[in-house]
Amino acid sequence: MIQTMHSTDDDLTDTIIAMECAALDRWGKGDPSGFLEICAPDVVYFDPNLERRIDGLDALGKYYETIRGKVFIERYELLNPLVQCVGDAVVLTFNYISCGGAEDEYRWNCTEVYRRSEEGWEIIQTHWSYTLAVRV
Amino acid sequence: MIQTMHSTDDDLTDTIIAMECAALDRWGKGDPSGFLEICAPDVVYFDPNLERRIDGLDALGKYYETIRGKVFIERYELLNPLVQCVGDAVVLTFNYISCGGAEDEYRWNCTEVYRRSEEGWEIIQTHWSYTLAVRV
Repeated sequence: MIQTMHSTDDDLTDTIIAMECAALDRWGKGDPSGFLEICAPDVVYFDPNLERRIDGLDALGKYYETIRGKVFIERYELLNPLVQCVGDAVVLTFNYISCGGAEDEYRWNCTEVYRRSEEGWEIIQTHWSYTLAVRV
Repeated sequence: MIQTMHSTDDDLTDTIIAMECAALDRWGKGDPSGFLEICAPDVVYFDPNLERRIDGLDALGKYYETIRGKVFIERYELLNPLVQCVGDAVVLTFNYISCGGAEDEYRWNCTEVYRRSEEGWEIIQTHWSYTLAVRV
């Protein structure tokens, strides 16, 4: 029974990380739709370029359209991903290094909250920030 | 029935925001224990001063001890708090302005994930970041 529970947890961890990496792979080729397709209508979003939280998939879609085709990530590392499960909610946290070129390296903190729906797992909260950041 | 559900949701929103503000009030007087007392043993934590995620209450407690008595927030604003409920998990997101003095103003994004336990609601994930941030 304990083995079964561990297997289930491991499966869920693998599922969530695979979803995140599939969306990141598309993101790194300038395609934000990988994320938009797995976000819930009530998703909320933070990143360091914004003055405040974005509320809702429509607003997030409009924001992402402004950067469609403009992101190029040559390679990335997803460091120490951790999945915390609470019923139909999953909290995925990780550090992340994205490299667009030889010297162009960014280091990030990321929190994603996924919620189980009839369609599968959907993101309801995204928070990206820089490590060792300062205010503008 | 719908009215009852709304009331319950409103009560939960009020409860979570009251917990957060009570901890923030103590934080602003240099006392991190308001947060430590409502964090779960498996809490994870990000803030912009760190190179990577902190894992677990013991590690977070050690980090907070380094800044105990050093934080002074004269006043703060918690902007547009939103509570998303998924069973025994609650995601609280807000923007936040902290003022330590006349010119010393910081603007933040914050995501807290609370989990219901036998003892009540506990934080399992905290993510603080600056709005409009740049890398060091």
